Amino acid sequence: MEIKVEYIKGPTKNTNIEVGSIINHIGERVGLHGSVYKIRRMSDFAFVLLRTKREVVQCIYSKDYAEFDLDVLKEESCIKLTADIIKEDRSKSGWELRMIDVEVLSEPIAESPIVINNKLVDTSLENLLDYRPITLRNEKERAIFKLQAGICMGFRKYFADQSFTEIHSPKIVSAGAEGGANIFQLNYFGKDAYLAQSPQFYKQMMVGVFERVYEIAPVFRAEKHDTSRHLNEYISVDFEMGYIEGFEDIMNMEVGMLRYALEELQANYTHELELLKMTPPNLTKIPSIKFMEAKDLISKKYNRSIKDYEDFEPEEETLLSEIIKKETGSDFVFVTHYPTAKRPFYAMEDPSNPEETLSFDLLFRGLEITTGGQRIHNLKEQIQKMKRLNMNIELFETYLMIHKYGMPPHGGLGLGLERFTSKLLNQDNVRLATLFPRDINRVAP
Amino acid sequence: MEIKVEYIKGPTKNTNIEVGSIINHIGERVGLHGSVYKIRRMSDFAFVLLRTKREVVQCIYSKDYAEFDLDVLKEESCIKLTADIIKEDRSKSGWELRMIDVEVLSEPIAESPIVINNKLVDTSLENLLDYRPITLRNEKERAIFKLQAGICMGFRKYFADQSFTEIHSPKIVSAGAEGGANIFQLNYFGKDAYLAQSPQFYKQMMVGVFERVYEIAPVFRAEKHDTSRHLNEYISVDFEMGYIEGFEDIMNMEVGMLRYALEELQANYTHELELLKMTPPNLTKIPSIKFMEAKDLISKKYNRSIKDYEDFEPEEETLLSEIIKKETGSDFVFVTHYPTAKRPFYAMEDPSNPEETLSFDLLFRGLEITTGGQRIHNLKEQIQKMKRLNMNIELFETYLMIHKYGMPPHGGLGLGLERFTSKLLNQDNVRLATLFPRDINRVAP
Repeated sequence: MEIKVEYIKGPTKNTNIEVGSIINHIGERVGLHGSVYKIRRMSDFAFVLLRTKREVVQCIYSKDYAEFDLDVLKEESCIKLTADIIKEDRSKSGWELRMIDVEVLSEPIAESPIVINNKLVDTSLENLLDYRPITLRNEKERAIFKLQAGICMGFRKYFADQSFTEIHSPKIVSAGAEGGANIFQLNYFGKDAYLAQSPQFYKQMMVGVFERVYEIAPVFRAEKHDTSRHLNEYISVDFEMGYIEGFEDIMNMEVGMLRYALEELQANYTHELELLKMTPPNLTKIPSIKFMEAKDLISKKYNRSIKDYEDFEPEEETLLSEIIKKETGSDFVFVTHYPTAKRPFYAMEDPSNPEETLSFDLLFRGLEITTGGQRIHNLKEQIQKMKRLNMNIELFETYLMIHKYGMPPHGGLGLGLERFTSKLLNQDNVRLATLFPRDINRVAP
Repeated sequence: MEIKVEYIKGPTKNTNIEVGSIINHIGERVGLHGSVYKIRRMSDFAFVLLRTKREVVQCIYSKDYAEFDLDVLKEESCIKLTADIIKEDRSKSGWELRMIDVEVLSEPIAESPIVINNKLVDTSLENLLDYRPITLRNEKERAIFKLQAGICMGFRKYFADQSFTEIHSPKIVSAGAEGGANIFQLNYFGKDAYLAQSPQFYKQMMVGVFERVYEIAPVFRAEKHDTSRHLNEYISVDFEMGYIEGFEDIMNMEVGMLRYALEELQANYTHELELLKMTPPNLTKIPSIKFMEAKDLISKKYNRSIKDYEDFEPEEETLLSEIIKKETGSDFVFVTHYPTAKRPFYAMEDPSNPEETLSFDLLFRGLEITTGGQRIHNLKEQIQKMKRLNMNIELFETYLMIHKYGMPPHGGLGLGLERFTSKLLNQDNVRLATLFPRDINRVAP
């Protein structure tokens, strides 16, 4: 019996060109495609801005050479365009793109209720997020997320260079890693289960397997805070590494990782950086200060009394960043040795002062973007601490396997991707750096 | 006022060397670190296998030169090792690694109840998964997940080459994209919310923004199936692309993406491929057959009556793969034009036969690993179809924004990462290619 199949052989070369390569096609007739972003009619010709994958390109429409009527185009129509690339020395690009013919692939059936093709989307945060599928089409809005993709790519390349292995840990879990009440519960076939607050236990387990691991994935926090810096679901950039000499190794790795990502942006994302008028901070080194010394410093410098000896108030994070910026020029500052009382049960205590942990936060322009530290790897030490904290040790039996059957000294960190992106762009709300934010009031779109 | 800070400058060069570079250190005394994987005592010396980040390396212990007693070492102890690299022509590697001194960083307090340092972990699936933090330390077990990381890296590099933008869509959603009852519900601050079954709506929205997008992230299916191929949480490799000429463009892109990943494995993962005795299939092209023709073919070839005209029975998928393998030599087969009745509401129907959709599955060695197709981009067409299906259109208002305000012809697919990995390794259960599987009975570890 004969069977009849066709063969699928992989993508063929695009006949349509990309905006970035137009310069190589001067004097030619080419094909392009994209959305009509904006039409600007002048007296006897028109500018048509075409939004392509990454760049918005200006096209010239004139009845002198166009073989179609401009009225067939609407803003947000998707088109295939035939164009002539003409040498034009007066233009910054060195060329002019003349529209010859179009094929309209689809058209909008209504005008967007929000103007998206001006420099900025001029509307409330509420509207911006309610109309996210449309407002993201704005050139600057989408550039934020192109940069965010670049940051992730930079992190991943760095992790690969440093021999980290990517892992995928489960998001449905039987117990929370971070403790506390801020955990989402779900019905898992009649059993209680939760959404992972962090990949903490899993990445530690995987240190025993691959020594160095990382994961860039969503985490879930049922925090009831409604602030400019909290999300109930966010992307956590986590790494964990074994055979460390001390928790400074983790901070050093973070400096390397941030530096690499910022260099990646400068190398491959100049288009977006220019659009957003953003210059990534020059990162050669990051100053580090102990928690209690930072508390004292802020207190003395601003004549504030210390109310909370165990944590920063958000205002103190801002003030500390201001001091550090002024004194050292750095946009980043590590704060180390957080009080044991405020760190999770797996945090290693400083042998010289058990009231403090071998842990750190990284503040960036006034906002905490990372928490990290060394973890306890000795079973006895871990169990003693859990007993001290009145924890039910049985619940953590699988986690404690790693301590029982051998673990190297290790530690790691988690970085909030949206917070980092947001502060990099000097935004005042983390939601602006989140495609579809989830907060206490918002679960759509 | 003077402030006292230290500076963190980035990782310093490791003084310990990696196994891969030992060949460059013949005649030298070097430092290494890792876990003691296995100790094999011979009459007057011993082999000590050291498990490092990626490779297990054989060390020689002899009292003739070692400055420590072998008894200080236990299996799964974490050590820092000082060793001499001696030229040894009789060894395959060209060198011999002599243990000079060790520093024991940590020791297990018990022996693992499951033997993990033989070629294979010889235990039940149940035990293998219950003791996952330990069983993954087996050389072959961990190689599976190193390959999986390589597959993801390959996909991402390919997507970057093809101008796709990485996105992060929310996993907590207000409505399911795939319909049906297999959706996990959670309490979201007193409101109903769900876990995303797929990033479907979001990736389509983002086609209007970036034209080509991808995401590698967890999805959640509350399916009650307890089979060797179902997981309730898995990693979905999703892409979606605009300005397609037809749904074949999507299949072509998948061929390119799979080919690239398999080449990535062959180029950079020979160590793991050899360990697992795996040769990636040579992928130049993939045969494609229509659903109804495939049904007929199986029916005739195996003299089976067709019971279900709308979907494959799992056995039929196996049989089809067998036929295709025999007739064309291919491990992969695309099946196209699935019945409209079995595809979601957003699937585009074939204009020449509305009973069939412009969609496809990809079968790999008898298992469906991908579902994809072209989506409806016209608002009127989409609303008509939703009405025909008695859907509540109001619930999909945000999703339909993209159709209302303009969308190019587009489509995409989702590939199950664990299924692909598992079939690549000829495993008989998808759980074997999942770090910490979630199924109807398992939510831990």
